[in-house]
This record gives sequence, C-alpha cells and structure tokens, in this order.
Amino acid sequence: MKNNTMTQPVLELLRSHRSIRKFTEQPVEESLLRDLITAGQSAATSSNLQGVSVIRVRNPETRRAMAELAGGQAYVEEAAEFLVFCADLNRSGWCCEQSGKTMADGMTEHFIIATVDVALFAQNVVVAAESEGLGICYIGALRNDPQQVSDLLALPDNVYPVFGLCLGYPDQDPECKPRLPLDAILMEEHYQPVNAERMAEYDETMRTYYQRRTGGKLDRVWSQEMSALLGKESRPHMREFLEKKGFKMR
Amino acid sequence: MKNNTMTQPVLELLRSHRSIRKFTEQPVEESLLRDLITAGQSAATSSNLQGVSVIRVRNPETRRAMAELAGGQAYVEEAAEFLVFCADLNRSGWCCEQSGKTMADGMTEHFIIATVDVALFAQNVVVAAESEGLGICYIGALRNDPQQVSDLLALPDNVYPVFGLCLGYPDQDPECKPRLPLDAILMEEHYQPVNAERMAEYDETMRTYYQRRTGGKLDRVWSQEMSALLGKESRPHMREFLEKKGFKMR
Repeated sequence: MKNNTMTQPVLELLRSHRSIRKFTEQPVEESLLRDLITAGQSAATSSNLQGVSVIRVRNPETRRAMAELAGGQAYVEEAAEFLVFCADLNRSGWCCEQSGKTMADGMTEHFIIATVDVALFAQNVVVAAESEGLGICYIGALRNDPQQVSDLLALPDNVYPVFGLCLGYPDQDPECKPRLPLDAILMEEHYQPVNAERMAEYDETMRTYYQRRTGGKLDRVWSQEMSALLGKESRPHMREFLEKKGFKMR
Repeated sequence: MKNNTMTQPVLELLRSHRSIRKFTEQPVEESLLRDLITAGQSAATSSNLQGVSVIRVRNPETRRAMAELAGGQAYVEEAAEFLVFCADLNRSGWCCEQSGKTMADGMTEHFIIATVDVALFAQNVVVAAESEGLGICYIGALRNDPQQVSDLLALPDNVYPVFGLCLGYPDQDPECKPRLPLDAILMEEHYQPVNAERMAEYDETMRTYYQRRTGGKLDRVWSQEMSALLGKESRPHMREFLEKKGFKMR
C-alpha cells in the first residue's frame, strides 16, 4: 500500500543518528518547525490521549537558566530552537471537569501513558528534523531541577517536563556511537540472561571508540560506565517533585 | 551535512501513520526484522544506557495468551511479527555486579530513563517499518496483566514489559486519525491554559471523523472520550507490579 522507493534512505537516516552539540547560527524556518511538530503529533498515542505539550523557549534568560541547571550545557542556549517536551494530563483533567467528573489522578498507569506518548511524539520530531538536515540533542538533564523548569514555564499540576530538545543546523560531524550487539537485546520467546562474552565484546568496541575520539586519552568501557551510573542514586528528588505535581504513582 | 532529497517523503511518511489491525499472511523477512531493530538501537538513549530488550514472540500459545490478556486483540495472534518491548535495568545491574557494586535500585529516575529509552527505540522501529511498507499497532494493553506477560517471557527483576508491537503487511487502509490543533499543544515560552474554543473545534473534527468511519452510527467527541478514560482508575495494579519487579519509584 506504500511505495518502497525510500526504503534504504530511511533506514540509513535512522542509523546515522548522533547527538549534535554544536550548531550554526542558521535559524529554523517557522514553517519547518510547525511541520516537525505536526510530524510529532502523527505518532501513535495511547487511546488518542495526546498527553503531550511542547513549549518552545526563545527567551535568552530562560535558555540560560536551563543551560545552567542542565549542568552547563551551552548548546541549550545556543541552538536555533529549544523545545521542552511535557507529559500533559492537565488537558484531560479539563475534559473531566467539563463533564462534571474528577480525574482519577496520580495513577502510575497514567504517568506511563503520558510519558510514553511524549517520547513517541518527540522521536518523530527528531526523525523529521534529521531528514531535513537538522541536528538534535535530547536534554534529559532538565530533570536535574524539574521544579525550576516548571516554574520558568509556568507548568500547572498534572504536567511535568520529561526532557528538552535542542534543534539546529549542525556545526560538527561526530561519528555514530556503537550500540550493543543486536543479539544482546533482541531475544526469541523468552528473556535471555546477560551474555558475558557479548558484553566483553561491546566493552572492547567502546574502548576503541573512545580512544579514537579522544586521541587515545580516554580508556573507558561501557560496563564500567554503567556501573558508575547505576551504582549511585540518580535525581532522588524526582519522586517528590512528581508527587507534588500530581503524579502520585499510586 | 545531509542531503535534503528525502525531505518531503519522510515528513509525509510520518504524517501518514495510522494503526493497522488487519494483516496479510506475508511474513517479514528475517533480514528486514533485524534492520528494523538496528534502526531502533540507533535512537538516542540516556547516557548510552540502552535500557531496552525486545522479545520476539512466535510461539502461537504465547501469542494467544497475550491476545487474550490484551482484551481479545486478535491481531496480536495474527500479525506476522509480535514484539514485546521491555524496559531493562537488569543488564546495568549486571554491570554493577561485575565491578562489585550494588545498583541503586528502585529509583523513579531510572524508571523514567528506561521507559523513555524503550519508547524512542520503538518509535524508530515503527518509522523504519512503515518506510518499508509494513503496518504496526502498539499494544499498551499488555499492561492489563503485566505479571502474566512477565511470566510468559521469563522476565527477571528490573525488567518490565512497556508495550507490545504488531508488525506485518497491511490488509486494510484506514484513514489517519485527526489530532488536536497544532496551536493547542505547541506553546511559546510558557504553558498556555486549555483553550475551550480549540477543544470544541477538535471535538467537532472528531465527531465528523467517527461518523464518517461508522457510517453515522457513532456520535462521540474527544473530550467525552477523555473524560470517560481518565475519570476512572486505570490499571491500578501497575504500581504494585512494578514495585515487585524492582521498580520501587523511590
């Protein structure tokens, strides 16, 4: 029912993704930006909930504050566009009110639905952007201080910032980061226990990658990185923040 | 840095998404399936965590059980391929163990990271699949009975099934579902309160859409649907299930 003419180009486009952290000053056309968001809207959404709001941030002071709270990621300030993707149950709460109902708030399930809605939407925006020659960088570090982000954007209850997205024309051309061997993550019928050999294989791939990127300076492997990352608490404020925002995880 | 030749095709491809619930018997080539998963792996992932495992289910009995627990969605049984996308922190737990650490388990933040990783990955699989003429349907209803899904797939702790995905060649050609007006979800600088007029506009769009699809039988608008959906508890077992699986939301 669809033609297959763009077969290879789309697979290649997807496979060529890498985060861009340095952008030219070329602006993104207004009409293109709207096309990208429309592409995002076309992604699947649970029961047509559309639990997504996108806030476009242009104010330089807001940008600077967000770059800082994200740990000093200058590209948040510099990218032609910076979008904050929010999981939004405020709109559905409004629908409930209109018909005299009260939203069953704080459900873990609703939290999952809205968060997944946001990610599917954003990834469509990303694919659309990259097909137009733009580069992108997701900014999960907005969750370093989600309360400040909420205050800056005047987010009401039942809305939380999932991540930001830098968009602009690339002023760098980094290589793609190698991923885990396909067979380590694609399984048949049942979950497969972690295969130590596969992990060692990937560790060596990543060691080579980091050495190439840093001219031999960085000697690091993936399993060590993960152990450093997951071996410590991460953003322990999230639970309380979400609860305060109405996402009670019940 | 990238050519723009596929500009319109990709935007059009994304905009033409609709769920497919009836498939031909044509199988999906093994090499194509692997290409799709590779495309998924290329999506952004938080700190290169790659918190995703994909389980390909072919066993007809498992398929039938999942179709049933998903509320009798026959296409789960019938589609050429059925994939279960799991948020996976078991692999990173293994990395911690290897270096004598203990994973800081149960963090809400880790839950968010892995869930978002899964959705970004899956959406890339979907875009790749649709570019190859396949149709897809996300199956969030696996969360109707996530424990049974976990048992069927032998999922260990720190792994949970986020959703399923039917893949196959379409045997139907439904129209795209209209989405909220762009200006209802794209906001400048700050969150914008719900605009009742925009909502009424969309309600009428959806009324027309449903009437057209059902030959005038269905008289329903979006805001009513949302109020019915969110006005009641949804999958209230999720919290306890996740907690038992190691996702303690702390």
